[in-house]
Amino acid sequence: MINKVNEVKLFGGRQIRYEHPSSVLNCTMQFSVYLPPQAEQQPVPALYWLSGLTCTDENFSSKAGAQRVAAELGIALIIPDTSPRGEGVPDDANQAYDFGLGAGFYVNATQAPWNQHYHMYDYIVQELRELVEKELPVTQRRAISGHSMGGHGALVMALRNPELYTSVSAFAPICHPTQCPWGHKAFSGYLGDDQAAWQEYDATELLLRLRKAPPMLISQGEADNFLAEQLRPDDLANAIAETGVEATFERHEGYDHSYYFIASFIEQHLRFHAEKLFN
Amino acid sequence: MINKVNEVKLFGGRQIRYEHPSSVLNCTMQFSVYLPPQAEQQPVPALYWLSGLTCTDENFSSKAGAQRVAAELGIALIIPDTSPRGEGVPDDANQAYDFGLGAGFYVNATQAPWNQHYHMYDYIVQELRELVEKELPVTQRRAISGHSMGGHGALVMALRNPELYTSVSAFAPICHPTQCPWGHKAFSGYLGDDQAAWQEYDATELLLRLRKAPPMLISQGEADNFLAEQLRPDDLANAIAETGVEATFERHEGYDHSYYFIASFIEQHLRFHAEKLFN
Repeated sequence: MINKVNEVKLFGGRQIRYEHPSSVLNCTMQFSVYLPPQAEQQPVPALYWLSGLTCTDENFSSKAGAQRVAAELGIALIIPDTSPRGEGVPDDANQAYDFGLGAGFYVNATQAPWNQHYHMYDYIVQELRELVEKELPVTQRRAISGHSMGGHGALVMALRNPELYTSVSAFAPICHPTQCPWGHKAFSGYLGDDQAAWQEYDATELLLRLRKAPPMLISQGEADNFLAEQLRPDDLANAIAETGVEATFERHEGYDHSYYFIASFIEQHLRFHAEKLFN
Repeated sequence: MINKVNEVKLFGGRQIRYEHPSSVLNCTMQFSVYLPPQAEQQPVPALYWLSGLTCTDENFSSKAGAQRVAAELGIALIIPDTSPRGEGVPDDANQAYDFGLGAGFYVNATQAPWNQHYHMYDYIVQELRELVEKELPVTQRRAISGHSMGGHGALVMALRNPELYTSVSAFAPICHPTQCPWGHKAFSGYLGDDQAAWQEYDATELLLRLRKAPPMLISQGEADNFLAEQLRPDDLANAIAETGVEATFERHEGYDHSYYFIASFIEQHLRFHAEKLFN
């Protein structure tokens, strides 16, 4: 069951925010959807977009300029929030930007108190997908993309579920979270000391182990403040080279970590996904 | 003298925020600029964008998607704030959204205490223009556009200074401010009871009196909440018809007052201005 919170016309299509009770997250969630004009005639394929730290469904919706291209190509955009929300959902004691609310890290938490709500992995891969495909005019052709923490989420979900996604892309993803401060903090908190669990949410480690992946496009700005310490693109680039999977890894001189970087290259990403979604 | 606050790469060009002391506004002001890649080689023409109530230079910069088209066409975007700012600048006693900070209405205030700072008309038409053309790689070919309160500002400035602007456009402008609640409140506060002064800041009245204008494009959403009470597009459309000036007035079914509306049609506006700017 989903409830429409608001709807706005955009590039001939409809930008809609929905609210629904999530049993996986044990709270009420909001997410945004862009339905291109083509969806008024027949179901269309969908691109899931996973946002980064501190974001909601609003950032990508208002800043990336993706709907223009989605309207041209006939792709729905599914834009979830980045963590469970609501009064009963615990937050970091210091309201840190990189743990708790707005920072679900797309894992299934095993540690109290987080394990009562923080199951963003299952929410995206299963519950939201089933809900969207039951309630909205989308087909079962899906691609997935994201930014930073959301780039990490998209890569992990696609690597672990290649049958669910035709293609995966990421902007400035956290490539090797078991080896960076953001990942250490999130995984320690949500998953505890179980290193095997950490590996299940690390794109570089997953690729090295599974040695296959849906077609992949990764864009990284060279002026990104988080480049060396948090994102570690070389680690994933090396894993791609070692495993020989189908992937394009682009470095862009002068671009930073912001939505201005995403806006500059989102059209390329959407056209990449369209090629797979419509095949 | 201008001071760069920050700079981000975007669509191959540069999105920059500047800070400068404004003698017209008697405070320190910030504004944003998008310099397209072409500006690295030679000066380019400029489009001034005036934002609406509650906005700063940030809203248009991050939400409209204009830079993509500006980069293609080789047009600089000059994006000022919507009022004077800073500790010494008085605000509405109730911090209303439609008067005081964020709501300068692009007039030269004559009433105390507003007349110490609120001279957004002279700031845009003269001080900022001269500053930008002295300090940045832009030519003296200029166009002007804006949204809502900023659409009002753009129309008024172009009608009163047709020699300064090759063309003017507006999204959901306040067309007849002497006849709507927003205009009454702003003009009473900033200009007092002097009805002759009010007329100088009313696009419909100015057009009926001056009977000429730079080429004009106006876009209005039919699902705009403010349509009948505040914006009064019919009044301006009638004045256009009566005076026979070169103008296109488009109504768009289903679109609202938000930046999603602007994003949907900003490319059309930029191409309209480019045709005049490069002639």
